[in-house]
Amino acid sequence: MNGTILTLVPLEERHREQMQKLCPEAKIVSLTGASQATDEQLVEAEIIFGNPEPARLAICRKLKFLQLESAGYDNYIAPGVLPEGVRVANATGAYGVALAEHMLAGVLAVQKNLYFYMDRQREGDWSDGGDVGGIYGSRAVIIGAGDIGSQMALRLSAMGASVAGVKRTVRGSMEYFDDLYEFRTAPWEQLLGDADMVIITAPLTEDTYHLIDGKKLAMMKPEAILVNGGRGGIVDTEALCDALEQGKLHAAVLDVTDPEPLPKDHRLWTTRGACITPHVAGGHHFRETVERIISIGTENMGHYAAGEPLRNQIR
Amino acid sequence: MNGTILTLVPLEERHREQMQKLCPEAKIVSLTGASQATDEQLVEAEIIFGNPEPARLAICRKLKFLQLESAGYDNYIAPGVLPEGVRVANATGAYGVALAEHMLAGVLAVQKNLYFYMDRQREGDWSDGGDVGGIYGSRAVIIGAGDIGSQMALRLSAMGASVAGVKRTVRGSMEYFDDLYEFRTAPWEQLLGDADMVIITAPLTEDTYHLIDGKKLAMMKPEAILVNGGRGGIVDTEALCDALEQGKLHAAVLDVTDPEPLPKDHRLWTTRGACITPHVAGGHHFRETVERIISIGTENMGHYAAGEPLRNQIR
Repeated sequence: MNGTILTLVPLEERHREQMQKLCPEAKIVSLTGASQATDEQLVEAEIIFGNPEPARLAICRKLKFLQLESAGYDNYIAPGVLPEGVRVANATGAYGVALAEHMLAGVLAVQKNLYFYMDRQREGDWSDGGDVGGIYGSRAVIIGAGDIGSQMALRLSAMGASVAGVKRTVRGSMEYFDDLYEFRTAPWEQLLGDADMVIITAPLTEDTYHLIDGKKLAMMKPEAILVNGGRGGIVDTEALCDALEQGKLHAAVLDVTDPEPLPKDHRLWTTRGACITPHVAGGHHFRETVERIISIGTENMGHYAAGEPLRNQIR
Repeated sequence: MNGTILTLVPLEERHREQMQKLCPEAKIVSLTGASQATDEQLVEAEIIFGNPEPARLAICRKLKFLQLESAGYDNYIAPGVLPEGVRVANATGAYGVALAEHMLAGVLAVQKNLYFYMDRQREGDWSDGGDVGGIYGSRAVIIGAGDIGSQMALRLSAMGASVAGVKRTVRGSMEYFDDLYEFRTAPWEQLLGDADMVIITAPLTEDTYHLIDGKKLAMMKPEAILVNGGRGGIVDTEALCDALEQGKLHAAVLDVTDPEPLPKDHRLWTTRGACITPHVAGGHHFRETVERIISIGTENMGHYAAGEPLRNQIR
């Protein structure tokens, strides 16, 4: 290729050199964010690396390949967004480490009573908060067994938990998972009844919308922790608030909510046991995520230039 | 043996059965804590399992073996505490999992800004706290490479960190550690200068008293996190407060302090970046710790009854 690569992801010099090496004829225009791009730059681009506003893409007459920095892509494959024939790839594989670390942080903070102790510290109070939970010897059910779910399973199994996975289609065994089930046929009563942690890492699909409703929450143990690092709509928020308030569930570690952003006066903010972070586990917050996004994107620039199949191609 | 085993550690029926199986002739007297024991029970015991008040042990004329439930034992081997010829074993190996999980919880809570988000949640505020740190790709230095240090190293290396260990005597390599050094000859400037996390799991000895003083704190990166799960006296508390207040250190995750308990008006409580739990990572707070204490103790009852060498024998 000898056209323009427009990158909207923050590149360091070493990233840019690597990309140029793989595409020696290309002109690389490197911006620090999607909002920086002018219409002229969008029109000129043969490849865009990043997530431009979907509404601005209709003008991209020279565009051949859009490498997204996100795992989600719904907005980009909707009819009319992109000119015909533009290939699209996503950044699946970039977010697993960051999400798994964030979810593990939330679970451990609850298990080890860190929020209780933080309040005690404000008072200068050296008081023992009593027994604690832990990962070792516990049972986890991970809903969604892709990159994020696998990274979580790796950590939990290394720490001595038994890990079940639930996914759309099971094809043989998977590393770090002790047992695997499919959404439509999983033995939910037994799986949820045995779980100390139920961890959602799945995308929002027709299989997963309100998958965790009042009925499933009632199957869980009162000591259990629900974790949502997938999408807010997978959990019925009102049913979750009820379960927490009635003591039917110990805690909910939520990086995603429904609705989102969560309105200031929403009952979830003050529900006992809810631990909320504002959809920050992913994004560019962790350096390793950015490295992986750039690594996937750069690899695909090389594939594109060499006429090879793309990684993570969506269309 | 056909004497009395006095257990001061909370046993379940299955534990008691197991112990009786190993010592079929013994009379097992099972209490739920050291304060429950009467003088008559102490006098009668051939074996005590647990940590009775040291001052009460002089009357134990029939005592042959004291199996402590703690890893520490200083108070029990002081002159005059125990009658001559009483063997003593400790419970090293019981606390590693609980300590490692607790310390990992503290590190991750700091790295992922969970305390910030907990404050935002009180306000119903969906605000992004910005970039986060993480374990993956980081460098950890673990001071003390026994059971607790090894359990921590296992978790950190599984999560993608590089792990150095510093200990009294290095004999070859150790699983989960990338490199090992001795207290007296460690290249501290380089080790601490490269570390994202410095994690203390060592006992308090002449090698480790105030090992982390102002000079060593000054070698650390301003972004680094200090973790103390060992003993408070290993760190110079005033120097630590100064380093945190001056922004020379990002945070300190402390389950032990000097002094302890920390007085209500001590400056450490309110020092920026100090995250304090009141010496609760060990003890009986986590079920796995209690299981391991009982497992070590029961194993040793069997060794004693069979005339075999004891595990963890101190004297």
